[in-house]
Amino acid sequence: MTGLHDTVQMDLCWKNARLATMTGDDLGLVDDGVVAAHDGRIVYAGPAKEAPAGAARTLDCEGRLITPGLIDCHTHLIHAGSRASEWAMRLEGASYEDIARAGGGIVSTMRATRAASEAQLVETALPRLDALIAEGVTTIEIKSGYGLDTASELKMLRAAHALARARRIRLAPTFLGAHALPPEYADDSDGYIDLVVREMIPAAAPLASAVDAFCEGIGFSPAQCERVFAAAEVHDLAVKIHAEQLSALHGSALAARRGALSADHLEHASDEDVRAMAAAGTVAVLLPGAYYFMRETRLPPVGAMRRHGVRIALATDCNPGTSPTSSLLLMLNMGATLFGLTVTEALRGVTVNAAAALGLSAEIGTLEAGKACDLAIWNTADPAELVYRIGLNPLHQRIKDAQ
Amino acid sequence: MTGLHDTVQMDLCWKNARLATMTGDDLGLVDDGVVAAHDGRIVYAGPAKEAPAGAARTLDCEGRLITPGLIDCHTHLIHAGSRASEWAMRLEGASYEDIARAGGGIVSTMRATRAASEAQLVETALPRLDALIAEGVTTIEIKSGYGLDTASELKMLRAAHALARARRIRLAPTFLGAHALPPEYADDSDGYIDLVVREMIPAAAPLASAVDAFCEGIGFSPAQCERVFAAAEVHDLAVKIHAEQLSALHGSALAARRGALSADHLEHASDEDVRAMAAAGTVAVLLPGAYYFMRETRLPPVGAMRRHGVRIALATDCNPGTSPTSSLLLMLNMGATLFGLTVTEALRGVTVNAAAALGLSAEIGTLEAGKACDLAIWNTADPAELVYRIGLNPLHQRIKDAQ
Ligand SMILES: [Zn+2]
Ligand SMILES: [Zn+2]
Repeated sequence: MTGLHDTVQMDLCWKNARLATMTGDDLGLVDDGVVAAHDGRIVYAGPAKEAPAGAARTLDCEGRLITPGLIDCHTHLIHAGSRASEWAMRLEGASYEDIARAGGGIVSTMRATRAASEAQLVETALPRLDALIAEGVTTIEIKSGYGLDTASELKMLRAAHALARARRIRLAPTFLGAHALPPEYADDSDGYIDLVVREMIPAAAPLASAVDAFCEGIGFSPAQCERVFAAAEVHDLAVKIHAEQLSALHGSALAARRGALSADHLEHASDEDVRAMAAAGTVAVLLPGAYYFMRETRLPPVGAMRRHGVRIALATDCNPGTSPTSSLLLMLNMGATLFGLTVTEALRGVTVNAAAALGLSAEIGTLEAGKACDLAIWNTADPAELVYRIGLNPLHQRIKDAQ
Repeated sequence: MTGLHDTVQMDLCWKNARLATMTGDDLGLVDDGVVAAHDGRIVYAGPAKEAPAGAARTLDCEGRLITPGLIDCHTHLIHAGSRASEWAMRLEGASYEDIARAGGGIVSTMRATRAASEAQLVETALPRLDALIAEGVTTIEIKSGYGLDTASELKMLRAAHALARARRIRLAPTFLGAHALPPEYADDSDGYIDLVVREMIPAAAPLASAVDAFCEGIGFSPAQCERVFAAAEVHDLAVKIHAEQLSALHGSALAARRGALSADHLEHASDEDVRAMAAAGTVAVLLPGAYYFMRETRLPPVGAMRRHGVRIALATDCNPGTSPTSSLLLMLNMGATLFGLTVTEALRGVTVNAAAALGLSAEIGTLEAGKACDLAIWNTADPAELVYRIGLNPLHQRIKDAQ
């Protein structure tokens, strides 16, 4: 074989596939497509008729769809304890006060997480990680934020790295010290932010790629989040924000002005917030699992995001308090069913746009030469099936780094 | 060992388990419980200290929860074709008319189902059945209703029996000829009901245990459903109804007066409907997957059901048009999250009350001596975990007929 590609080195090739490359503005569908890999990276993804030849091993996909490996770009996967019982109490009519008196709420997760060893944190998170992996997830973001003291936050980040070593998964570790106020700082949130800024971020920097903060009336103020972001910048860490979930403090616009990778939740984001995100290229990470589980009624401003060109990602927000979900496929369906996303938007939300939300656009998220060869191969040729079906996992095979 | 049980024959025994027997009005929890079986049937389920001894084989559950095998009491599991593309079109803004013009809607499922062979119907339904089985489902109801001519309706029922032979699953087959009006009877719904009553029901009777009808403005009138039920009675078939999903025609009260096993959907049921169901012992089968997928906002009258003592069941309604779901565990969560059911109500809804909805109370649905030994053994001791977690399957083992 000669031609354009006669010098392309490749050791592995998937043929007879339908590709959803996620390049351009849509799914980037290629019928009769080929993906070729060398040394764990994609060297070609496109039509068979232009594909290079000479792979040592060729795999026949029998017409199946290949997407980029899925990316869950917002999780609190690591946490100890269970909040199932307090949720059961709420269904029986208990108030938040009743539950707090019974030792429930985020503080119960903090206590259990502090008490757990790193190995226990890994062990309890593994079934959740395995559920995501079984759906074709090849990259996961994991946040700290249930330790709320320096040692426990570092323990969570180390557990995240240990999890990533225990499975073939790409990790984006995020430090979220400013998640909630620990009881020992009950009347001194500025004092806690001092600790986050002066002690936690410097110590966490080697273990994290981004810093996140929970900007909310029940969390931290925009001014406090800004202090967190300033400290992150000093340590060359990207920033992200939980914002406009329950109220409109305009944390998303603030984070956008600081060049945040993403602002997440956003049900209460204003048109101004969305425009600030568009100007900065900040990704909107929508979390329909939390919206669903908390029985929220206010929808994120998807129309404004489309109008202003803000990229939309979807994630599980896997966490014990507000989104105890381990299914990214279900989030595709909820993004469409509850938030009105199209099939294209939903699938781009867990691939190319989720990669952007993690600052990993150069590495993952599309099927393109030069990127890591992370693939999900599906038992269907129709991308809509991935979004439409509920509780049915059509994954045929998951490939990470061409393996 | 001597005592009460010294004459109990048993060949198999599960010990060191937490039982949710579903006897009485609640979960019927037994800590340190034992289930013993002989010849596929439960001979004892209760506290270890009162358990008989002498099983040939004893299995240590290591503290795990055992529930009755789960029962999905309302499915349209068998159908051909896919409605994913038309759903994708709707998300892009297409109207129902656009979709009808493009050949979509229930008629597209009817055409595909008519065109499929019995073997093809089995093959396409198996992944959905396997997803349910993987969650601990041991009994499934499957309806006909996409054939809409005698031969195709019978083909669907035969496919249901073939599915049940292909896997270890208990089948409750339901004839639903009165599901929709086939195009050849477009202006003659009474003529179609004639066909259902005179030809289909007599032919389907050997293959079905119940007859169902879709009572709705877009389906069949109460008077037409009544004709269907009268024919069912002649053939000694139980009756069920799809009622009050989109409007209040009081089909549920009508069906209750005819002694229906269940009335299903019920978002628009009135207090009178609920009282009629209570008087007749008709089970309310709630279908939160359809409510969710169709973005309905009107909740079923759970309060009235509680007040009047109507038993509540939950099911997937697995179907391609309005509830493409294959997860009964997710329905537990949706029943609680969307409809406000308690953990106890949700779990009784897929066990003891689902058995009642199928007329199988004597056979399945609780852990009690005399019933079939259908068990689900879970990787948790807390029943709330089964309802709380989303997209995580904690099934340890599924046992049908003690195997
Ligand atoms: Zn979060
Ligand atoms: Zn139905």
